[in-house]
Amino acid sequence: MQINPGPLLQAIDSPEDLKKLNRSQLHEICDELRQYIVDVVSVHGGHFAASLGVVELSVALHYVYNTPYDQLVWDVGHQAYGHKILTGRRDNFVTNRKYKGLSGFPKRSESIYDTFGVGHSSTSISAALGMAMAAKYKGEDRKSVAVIGDGSMTAGMAFEAMNHAGVADSDVLIILNDNCMSIDPNVGALKEYLTDISTSPTYNKVRDEIWNILGKLPVGKNFTRDMAGKLEASVKSVVTKSSNLFEALKIRYFGPIDGHNITKLVDTLTDLKKIPGPKLLHIVTVKGKGYSLAEKDQTKWHAPGLFDKVTGEIYKKKIDAPQPPKYQDVFGHTMIELAEANDQVMGVTPAMPSGSSLKFMMEKMPHRAFDVGICEQHAVTLSAGLATQGMRVFCNIYSSFMQRAYDQVVHDVAIQKLPVVFCLDRAGLVGEDGPTHHGCYDIPYMRCIPNLVVSAPMNEQELRNLMYTAQLANNNHPFVIRYPRGEGMMPEWRTPFEEITIGKGRKLKDGKEIAILSFGHPGNFAQAAIRELRTQGIDPAHYDLRFVKPIDEDLLHEAFGKYKKIVTVEDGTVVGGFGSAILEFMSKHNYQAEVRILGIPDRLVEHGTPKELHRECAYDAQGIADAVRELMKEKVSVLAG
Amino acid sequence: MQINPGPLLQAIDSPEDLKKLNRSQLHEICDELRQYIVDVVSVHGGHFAASLGVVELSVALHYVYNTPYDQLVWDVGHQAYGHKILTGRRDNFVTNRKYKGLSGFPKRSESIYDTFGVGHSSTSISAALGMAMAAKYKGEDRKSVAVIGDGSMTAGMAFEAMNHAGVADSDVLIILNDNCMSIDPNVGALKEYLTDISTSPTYNKVRDEIWNILGKLPVGKNFTRDMAGKLEASVKSVVTKSSNLFEALKIRYFGPIDGHNITKLVDTLTDLKKIPGPKLLHIVTVKGKGYSLAEKDQTKWHAPGLFDKVTGEIYKKKIDAPQPPKYQDVFGHTMIELAEANDQVMGVTPAMPSGSSLKFMMEKMPHRAFDVGICEQHAVTLSAGLATQGMRVFCNIYSSFMQRAYDQVVHDVAIQKLPVVFCLDRAGLVGEDGPTHHGCYDIPYMRCIPNLVVSAPMNEQELRNLMYTAQLANNNHPFVIRYPRGEGMMPEWRTPFEEITIGKGRKLKDGKEIAILSFGHPGNFAQAAIRELRTQGIDPAHYDLRFVKPIDEDLLHEAFGKYKKIVTVEDGTVVGGFGSAILEFMSKHNYQAEVRILGIPDRLVEHGTPKELHRECAYDAQGIADAVRELMKEKVSVLAG
Repeated sequence: MQINPGPLLQAIDSPEDLKKLNRSQLHEICDELRQYIVDVVSVHGGHFAASLGVVELSVALHYVYNTPYDQLVWDVGHQAYGHKILTGRRDNFVTNRKYKGLSGFPKRSESIYDTFGVGHSSTSISAALGMAMAAKYKGEDRKSVAVIGDGSMTAGMAFEAMNHAGVADSDVLIILNDNCMSIDPNVGALKEYLTDISTSPTYNKVRDEIWNILGKLPVGKNFTRDMAGKLEASVKSVVTKSSNLFEALKIRYFGPIDGHNITKLVDTLTDLKKIPGPKLLHIVTVKGKGYSLAEKDQTKWHAPGLFDKVTGEIYKKKIDAPQPPKYQDVFGHTMIELAEANDQVMGVTPAMPSGSSLKFMMEKMPHRAFDVGICEQHAVTLSAGLATQGMRVFCNIYSSFMQRAYDQVVHDVAIQKLPVVFCLDRAGLVGEDGPTHHGCYDIPYMRCIPNLVVSAPMNEQELRNLMYTAQLANNNHPFVIRYPRGEGMMPEWRTPFEEITIGKGRKLKDGKEIAILSFGHPGNFAQAAIRELRTQGIDPAHYDLRFVKPIDEDLLHEAFGKYKKIVTVEDGTVVGGFGSAILEFMSKHNYQAEVRILGIPDRLVEHGTPKELHRECAYDAQGIADAVRELMKEKVSVLAG
Repeated sequence: MQINPGPLLQAIDSPEDLKKLNRSQLHEICDELRQYIVDVVSVHGGHFAASLGVVELSVALHYVYNTPYDQLVWDVGHQAYGHKILTGRRDNFVTNRKYKGLSGFPKRSESIYDTFGVGHSSTSISAALGMAMAAKYKGEDRKSVAVIGDGSMTAGMAFEAMNHAGVADSDVLIILNDNCMSIDPNVGALKEYLTDISTSPTYNKVRDEIWNILGKLPVGKNFTRDMAGKLEASVKSVVTKSSNLFEALKIRYFGPIDGHNITKLVDTLTDLKKIPGPKLLHIVTVKGKGYSLAEKDQTKWHAPGLFDKVTGEIYKKKIDAPQPPKYQDVFGHTMIELAEANDQVMGVTPAMPSGSSLKFMMEKMPHRAFDVGICEQHAVTLSAGLATQGMRVFCNIYSSFMQRAYDQVVHDVAIQKLPVVFCLDRAGLVGEDGPTHHGCYDIPYMRCIPNLVVSAPMNEQELRNLMYTAQLANNNHPFVIRYPRGEGMMPEWRTPFEEITIGKGRKLKDGKEIAILSFGHPGNFAQAAIRELRTQGIDPAHYDLRFVKPIDEDLLHEAFGKYKKIVTVEDGTVVGGFGSAILEFMSKHNYQAEVRILGIPDRLVEHGTPKELHRECAYDAQGIADAVRELMKEKVSVLAG
């Protein structure tokens, strides 16, 4: 289906074209840009509400700044669709987030207007400051602008960058896009503070009021000019020195202004371009602006999937039979079951209550399940602190976001052997979000840490049983459970809890000559491969190891005792992961076997559907079957030779 | 040598004993405690100035709070010597930081008074908040106190925790110990802000002044009661709502007070115990307080080594011949050489200018080398931002601290393939700082990331050449160089630069039947082992791989073609590290050989001298020789059998 941009937008192939418009036409281009985003995303999918909220900002920035000479960094980047459309990617935008198509995030290799690749939150100020410092060092007058949401501002990294920016004497502008939202509503003291200073009776109004009254101070007999001067100086000193959080950090604060007023934005940015040094512009926007359903339910419309743009109906997959639930929902409902039976159980999420489904427990047991904001580091050490008091905390963090809290896992949990449970959601290839969000590295980065248990369920029942096992009093280890984004395998998933012996895997079937060793969900791909292979007279054994640490040496002795051809399968990098753990076992016990390690290759895997990516990486059923056939063929050729 | 504590201290075996003292005796116990720290550290070594700075605070906390029921968390923990001495470890304190002795940091397994193990900075607020939330949930009235320095406060994690604490409605007290120092002088906007509010004319004085003047407002004809009331309300609103950074985060702020006034401290803490909710007490202290040399040069006296407590002479090792320099100094001086020749070279350190020796460049080229504070995350992404503008940034971070910036390495550097150079200082076993500071995990956590080059020099010349190679224009990869704490091997270290082909190792010698493959500095241990083995008729080959990624497959084909017995040596964990990379190569190419992997075992290694720890882990010369002999013996027994 052809999607036609409006007449003005049709003519904009770069910010140069945008700059040719009159200021009076900017309203119109904003309308067209917003409509084009609605038109494309409703049919092709993608993030939605965030980009609608910064339509005016996107237009204003490219209108005022000399991009790409001036450097524009979008934090997280799922709000950058307008930016992409305005910078030469209008027609290609229909390929957004599709296999081999445009990335859903700014990406340096995609456009010179994408100055810094993003995806995870709160990197923009550091990156823009680096650019500003380089410009200063090189004597260039290029400007650097970071656009960051109030949710991203809660991550410690943003604070670290501001602490430096305030004294670095570089020309960086931070635009705080305040919409009170992360994917879920934003939380924490900072959010309340921003609300204080942006809402009526506003902090700024109060400040203005003081100046007004001070100006009217009557000087007379009792109240001398000296006293008046002293009062004014004192008030000014206090209000100026620490009139707000950002000025306390030596960053000049401007705003708040309405982020949907394009004229005001253009005027303000034009003024700010002339002001040197570190500064922050606070704009207030509405996530989903201009699409009323999205304005009303911003979490639902963060990335709604395909929808009817007129009625607002979000399309659901047609289903004939009961479908397996998402692993996320199994986690969410199981949390409540465990918490009801064990009053030590608590839940922690860094800003992903909906994504992780911890929201079910947060709604039902608000005193035992917490969203701490985009603060993975704090989430882990808070969990450690709770664990010292006997709590059994399930800290749910996406695999790629756990990279943010790696030190806390080592230093605050593992070294102290505190029995925190880490549910690593989105482990493996996540699909459309691409390389920033793939959970490729957690197997090597976790299994190298002493004291940890590292596990992966092959299905819903296994997830439930691993969760159950992790919170039992006889587990005294930190316990990692990694599982992928999306659906599992069992429509009837609410199975009774069973304790699993830590470090024990499962033999799923015996076989002939060759064995498949799998870890986690790809065990299902192995089962599909085996079904196909058996029709061809090849009958591999199959072991689901369940734990990569401690690994089931008994099971491996059995496997390596019986089979001299081994295929390992994991949805993680092949460098230092599950396959390498198997090689370490072999080396330790002097086993010799031909081993093929299937998993995510040692290169970046771009975006696409999980199915497309599993195919590309050749650890889907077909890839596993191919590897088995190849190993079996080698034997044949050896015999023939 | 017997070191005798003073008469009061002699009687204190626990905080219970401390509480028996009159308030008038507290000065004396502080004096005795300070003297005991001087006496012990001057003879036995350890961190020094930090503990002297919190003598009064340590006494006051245990005097006022009901420890260990109340939970006391020391951030970083090298200031906790007074705490240790007061909590049953007085006589054992002479074993501080020695092999099998007391840890230099609080440690849960060492004492019930050590509520949370520390070592890295900025974890205390999260941990104490977790404890406070658990107490609230359980209905216990126990208090939680976090003691954190102004340096640690700059790390983002502290901000994340405050953002949560401000709205968590839990009874946590944060004591900000403001001494303007990290190990080096503290940097950043926060430090300046804290100076603003703690020095004269202080922010607080100004605030008080406003209240005074407001109280005296004359009401008359022109200035009505209504106007006065309005003014007062407005000023109060502004000053209260955002009177400072911490109150902006909804944390009640108290102070600043003199942290060496024991009476004031005891009074203030007694009052604060009664105030519910999140609150912060700002105390101003002098690092090194009471030992005048330490007060004057706080960086030098952070951990001075052994010294004459009377003259202040810091003892140096006696040397007969020229000694090899520390790797750190080779890094520091080489930075200047490289920067002088290449104007794109820059240096970044997160608060370790002295420890890393980047200070040489910071002094000589302050516009090209930066200390960004205890902000590893920001340091990495700032480096990435600089790299987008063509800068060649050497970002020097200790191996264990790089765990704090793991996501930034993946997300901001590797995915974008920006040629940032990471110098991972303190890789391997660091010695006396123990498990929190050992750099055990970087080989697996780095080599699993695509696009990275991961290298380790065997000596000073190799370090220089790797640094030289990394900044050449023809390197377009992020480049990791890991090296240990302390001395290298070459007194004549300033060798001419030579480019190294990326991914190429070195054959150091041929041998018979068995080969040693080493990575980095332990190659020297291998050489010592070989010298010994040759006297016993065993002659191993020796390859220094130099790169674990990309690994030198040509060299490995040679080694595995010639030798069927292989010993690998690394100063990193044996799980997923260099040895595993060798196994992956073998598996990929179907080589069969007996392999022994030597390195840090998969358990926590406690503190001790590096030599003691290398021995314990059996990858010193003796351990390597033993492994070679064992492998060779197996052959003999096979032949005999």
